[in-house]
Amino acid sequence: MPRVPVPPEVDEFLAQPHAAVIATLRPDGSPHTAATWYDWEDGRVLLNMDESRVRLGYMRRDPRVSLTVIDIQQWYRQLTLMGRAVTIEEDPDLADIDRLARRYTGKPYRDRNRDSVTAWLEPERWYGWDGGHPWRE
Amino acid sequence: MPRVPVPPEVDEFLAQPHAAVIATLRPDGSPHTAATWYDWEDGRVLLNMDESRVRLGYMRRDPRVSLTVIDIQQWYRQLTLMGRAVTIEEDPDLADIDRLARRYTGKPYRDRNRDSVTAWLEPERWYGWDGGHPWRE
Repeated sequence: MPRVPVPPEVDEFLAQPHAAVIATLRPDGSPHTAATWYDWEDGRVLLNMDESRVRLGYMRRDPRVSLTVIDIQQWYRQLTLMGRAVTIEEDPDLADIDRLARRYTGKPYRDRNRDSVTAWLEPERWYGWDGGHPWRE
Repeated sequence: MPRVPVPPEVDEFLAQPHAAVIATLRPDGSPHTAATWYDWEDGRVLLNMDESRVRLGYMRRDPRVSLTVIDIQQWYRQLTLMGRAVTIEEDPDLADIDRLARRYTGKPYRDRNRDSVTAWLEPERWYGWDGGHPWRE
């Protein structure tokens, strides 16, 4: 499985607001998955969660994650990043969730009382499919 | 998190050919994710993989999985099933991969030399979001 950095085509793909699913590890080691907004900046992934989301506790306990990004229009174009949550910090001004909401909806986030928490993921490996073929390195 | 069986609305949702991402566990315990076709029958999930797919080995080693299903048209409708791969068997006549290919593309699977392997997943727990609200039990 290729190591980072990703090639330019993959970088461009990840810069689009595609659908994504994040996998974390439950305390018993079993996987947990959830659909998520994300952003991509300088080879890292931005996620934001409400403090109440269980996956936030899972990520604090074990930072290992896997993210699969799917082109919603053509979901055989897909890219998976495996790595770790390297920082998990409060987002008191909702700057990061607004950034994600604008990216996906064009507007700031609706709920201004959210207990907003930001995680940055650092990928280590990646693979993907571009139609019927593996994404080239 | 609710236990199975899922309510009728969730059953109907899963019966549609939505996009999905499956998480399995790598030998070091970290999560691996991949986009996948699936089918839903009598409360179980059908997956099919080529023998060469790494997630097949991961599932044989540790059967714990999590599957997030996304409505491609409206991906804030999403449903996650957590459970186990209960059977993993060869699909020598390509009956199961043809079933999935017909469900998603309307045609039998193109590659007739595939080393086709079928896994049935038995969910134990589920949760989901239907727009901005948790899917009701």
